[in-house]
Amino acid sequence: MTNPTAAMLVIGDEILSGRTRDSNLHHLAKELTAHGIRLAEARIVADDHAAIVSALNDLRARFDHVFTSGGIGPTHDDITADAVAEALGAEIGIRDDARALLQTHYQRTGLELNAARLRMARIPQGASLIDNPISAAPGFSIGNVHVMAGVPAIFQAMLASVLPGLAGGDAMLSQSVDVHRGEGEIAGPLGELAARYPDLGFGSYPWIRDGVHGTQIVVRGTDAARLDGAMVKLMAMLEPGK
Amino acid sequence: MTNPTAAMLVIGDEILSGRTRDSNLHHLAKELTAHGIRLAEARIVADDHAAIVSALNDLRARFDHVFTSGGIGPTHDDITADAVAEALGAEIGIRDDARALLQTHYQRTGLELNAARLRMARIPQGASLIDNPISAAPGFSIGNVHVMAGVPAIFQAMLASVLPGLAGGDAMLSQSVDVHRGEGEIAGPLGELAARYPDLGFGSYPWIRDGVHGTQIVVRGTDAARLDGAMVKLMAMLEPGK
Repeated sequence: MTNPTAAMLVIGDEILSGRTRDSNLHHLAKELTAHGIRLAEARIVADDHAAIVSALNDLRARFDHVFTSGGIGPTHDDITADAVAEALGAEIGIRDDARALLQTHYQRTGLELNAARLRMARIPQGASLIDNPISAAPGFSIGNVHVMAGVPAIFQAMLASVLPGLAGGDAMLSQSVDVHRGEGEIAGPLGELAARYPDLGFGSYPWIRDGVHGTQIVVRGTDAARLDGAMVKLMAMLEPGK
Repeated sequence: MTNPTAAMLVIGDEILSGRTRDSNLHHLAKELTAHGIRLAEARIVADDHAAIVSALNDLRARFDHVFTSGGIGPTHDDITADAVAEALGAEIGIRDDARALLQTHYQRTGLELNAARLRMARIPQGASLIDNPISAAPGFSIGNVHVMAGVPAIFQAMLASVLPGLAGGDAMLSQSVDVHRGEGEIAGPLGELAARYPDLGFGSYPWIRDGVHGTQIVVRGTDAARLDGAMVKLMAMLEPGK
């Protein structure tokens, strides 16, 4: 596959403790797939400086893009910006452009731009800001790392403004079919088909509905004609009686 | 924290492509927290032999336990058992004990134990089997790695049989309170409190409901009395007018 690759780094104790269910990964996965960027790995780490720095340095060296979510709010455990700065060897401090965004927002809402809120203007030098249309505090891109908020509505808005600027590959297409056969029954033919179409991905996902077992077969690739051809062969293989 | 640590490794293209939303991580996180094991990291990798081996070797060296989900079915892309065997330097082949479990199950259900299904009896030498009460094909534990199915009902059943055998630490307790104040307003006092109670974890999670902003504050720790003390101080700090 020649599509660009990406990794996601989710930052937050609350996911690892089971308090919260992450939903940003699923959103990012769908958006990247549609944009022709292959999400190759995801990681979830705690609000721990060393863990964030180490994961970032590993991921940004191995993939074309790294998207982070979480840890850029005003509280003591929001340490993502500083960890990103350290990983990339960048200076960090309160930046005038980010401070101006916060000033405008808090003047408009009548709230005080106190010391805690001002922390959200700490942005590494050389980073470009990512617009936050919901609560003003910006995300940022530096090198191949895109730093975004954990609150799903803000994460989604930030991604929507970042993604159009990134080169995508061919969009990944998929077709799927549900069959009333166990995975073990279709595994043989499916394996043969996968060997004949090495440019496509073949997945099978067993399901149980009202006590009935079946399998969903998903075929994925970037060439619509190849996909159609594989589906025709697949359906022939699965014809009753075969 | 002296509680044992754990990592999760989720294996599956379908999560990274956005086709499926993982739910096993959330279940594992809650169960481990209740058992006094701290989930410190989670990773999601594709159905790729080298990626699985590399992630396994990193995680099993750094944490007391590694739990995997996915990739132990009958199809060509179910490659977890072989990757685990390679990572741990163990021989792998069809084991008699696992084959016997499958034989009994397929005899009972009247289905054929074909070559694809027999692949599910490929278990590394030296591993102990994990019971699968739903579809017989076992998981296994080898070293500090626990290999389980991706289908949520089976994952949960396997975890329920593995977890009681693992030493846990003190159960992690938590208390939470919702306040109608923005995160930026409570960040200062919360940070002071966190500095006074270094043995506790303090998290804050902004929310928006019907246009009203607020924050959920979560305090976590293993000592109930310390937790109570911190909550009393927290409430006093947040008293209206302060």
